[in-house]
Amino acid sequence: MNIRIVTEEELRRCVEMDNESLEAVEQSFVSLSKGEATVPPIMRIPVPERTGEVDVKSAHIHGLESLTIKVASGFYENLQRGLPSSCGLMVIVSAETGFIQAVLLDNGYLTDVRTGLAGAIAAKYLAKDSIGTAGVIGSGAQARYQMRALKLVRDYRRLLVYGIVPEEVDRYISDMSSVLSVEIFRAKSAEEVVRNSDVVVTTTPSRTAYLRPEWLHPGLHITAMGTDAEDKQELFPEVLGRADRLVCDRKSQCLRLGELHHGIEAKVISCDSRLDELGEIIAGNKPGRESDEQITVCDLTGVGVQDTAIALLAYNKAVEKGVGLNIET
Amino acid sequence: MNIRIVTEEELRRCVEMDNESLEAVEQSFVSLSKGEATVPPIMRIPVPERTGEVDVKSAHIHGLESLTIKVASGFYENLQRGLPSSCGLMVIVSAETGFIQAVLLDNGYLTDVRTGLAGAIAAKYLAKDSIGTAGVIGSGAQARYQMRALKLVRDYRRLLVYGIVPEEVDRYISDMSSVLSVEIFRAKSAEEVVRNSDVVVTTTPSRTAYLRPEWLHPGLHITAMGTDAEDKQELFPEVLGRADRLVCDRKSQCLRLGELHHGIEAKVISCDSRLDELGEIIAGNKPGRESDEQITVCDLTGVGVQDTAIALLAYNKAVEKGVGLNIET
Repeated sequence: MNIRIVTEEELRRCVEMDNESLEAVEQSFVSLSKGEATVPPIMRIPVPERTGEVDVKSAHIHGLESLTIKVASGFYENLQRGLPSSCGLMVIVSAETGFIQAVLLDNGYLTDVRTGLAGAIAAKYLAKDSIGTAGVIGSGAQARYQMRALKLVRDYRRLLVYGIVPEEVDRYISDMSSVLSVEIFRAKSAEEVVRNSDVVVTTTPSRTAYLRPEWLHPGLHITAMGTDAEDKQELFPEVLGRADRLVCDRKSQCLRLGELHHGIEAKVISCDSRLDELGEIIAGNKPGRESDEQITVCDLTGVGVQDTAIALLAYNKAVEKGVGLNIET
Repeated sequence: MNIRIVTEEELRRCVEMDNESLEAVEQSFVSLSKGEATVPPIMRIPVPERTGEVDVKSAHIHGLESLTIKVASGFYENLQRGLPSSCGLMVIVSAETGFIQAVLLDNGYLTDVRTGLAGAIAAKYLAKDSIGTAGVIGSGAQARYQMRALKLVRDYRRLLVYGIVPEEVDRYISDMSSVLSVEIFRAKSAEEVVRNSDVVVTTTPSRTAYLRPEWLHPGLHITAMGTDAEDKQELFPEVLGRADRLVCDRKSQCLRLGELHHGIEAKVISCDSRLDELGEIIAGNKPGRESDEQITVCDLTGVGVQDTAIALLAYNKAVEKGVGLNIET
């Protein structure tokens, strides 16, 4: 049996945040919403003694030649020791034979890409066609990926950024100025970002809501992607109540882990509220934004189909380019 | 970051079915039963269009330096194409940092070893001290591992084997004669095996019960390891009812996936029936066999702690021996 081992550096040469990757992730959302994917619940292995956790996500998109299993860890105490807080790999398994075809040692790179792209997909269907200013709350890795991905779907000119650590915001502005051809401004508050942007992406690991309903304005689109666990929250539940269009990546998951579950608990929305999945909108079965005045909110928790889509794209490119190490086992 | 990739052939040089491995798996059962392990439910990804499935098992044994995640596939149509039906690997993750330390490309070898050893552990505590004849039903890989492992704990002299494919039984007898220093006899039926053995291990993937209560006799120990899914069954429920001691690897799992759940459904045993875990017996908190006349039954479904125990043993040996390939990523 031959197994291909591909490193992060090699994967970066195979997959970028571009339209081809965007298309792959879009199609995975369509498969998900059509029921054409098997997505088991996330496996969580908490390591409380180190404030860490290891998550396993998987998805089999019916009809694709392979399925994937992703292992991703988050150990936040690492940061105090100057180490990265996350790590991960993806395993590619043949859907024909069950044989393991490849191990992608991506250190979370593919997750970063597919997560950034999901934000872009939300904006593609839910933001106004023409936007001047984009805003981002948080200044970490996803604040970078989200704003780069957004450029694929909207040609914004100004970027407002707010983060709680001034030096990190400095670094963000310096890094991103060379990547994005936009003017980047430091905001004094999350409020300033929201009040002055057409699209806002929230990317923090906050455990208390900070984004207030009174900051919303006609035409605003918010993508909330920081909240992916029961105890995280960025939006006050009333923000969900004020939205004209409420969308998510996967209903069952967002009602358990995302912003939506706080909305349900606060009784601002109910399980019967009109709530669409991105895949339904991409497939044209549900409308996206319907006017320039609507307020739209998209809750993203991250779904295994995204991993499968991006991992298979990477794997096929690696095979095509002959990249990676073949191990006979 | 450095990740060690170890192939099956290298792993076979690191871990064998010996007393050191037995001890590691025993200790993992103790941790499980003491509540000193985090074992999430098995993740199943069915691939019905190929009669296949991919399972993910994991366990964090508290206090150990690493945890593991196992990916194992079973695609039974492969056999018709002359391909192996199973495949798998183990991922070693640091419990200190969440960093991935190693990928063990074991093709299921470590699972075979830890599964064989679990059978030996069951016999160690539940079989009579001195046994003359061991019996095995089925003639596949586990029929081999089980009988080799049993030799570690009981010096049996005769082996009875029954399988439904005569050529496979021929091969079994020929292969095992050179491995085990025992006389091996072909039985004409499962009944002949059970009636004439002191220890019986059932290793088939049967979906209908075949082992009948009227075949039981004083002093018999049965390890039922073939049944690891809701729709598999080897023992008639009354066999469980006739047992003086009923033991399993993990209660919650056997009551859902193992022989025990058929016993509950048939109302032969109840959730309140006296049912002990192997780990409780190993720790000395519950008795093993109490007399040479008792009939004992152990239901094994396979638990993530066994994988973690054997994988860490293999990983530590690989590091010690400098075996495997280090990949910088």
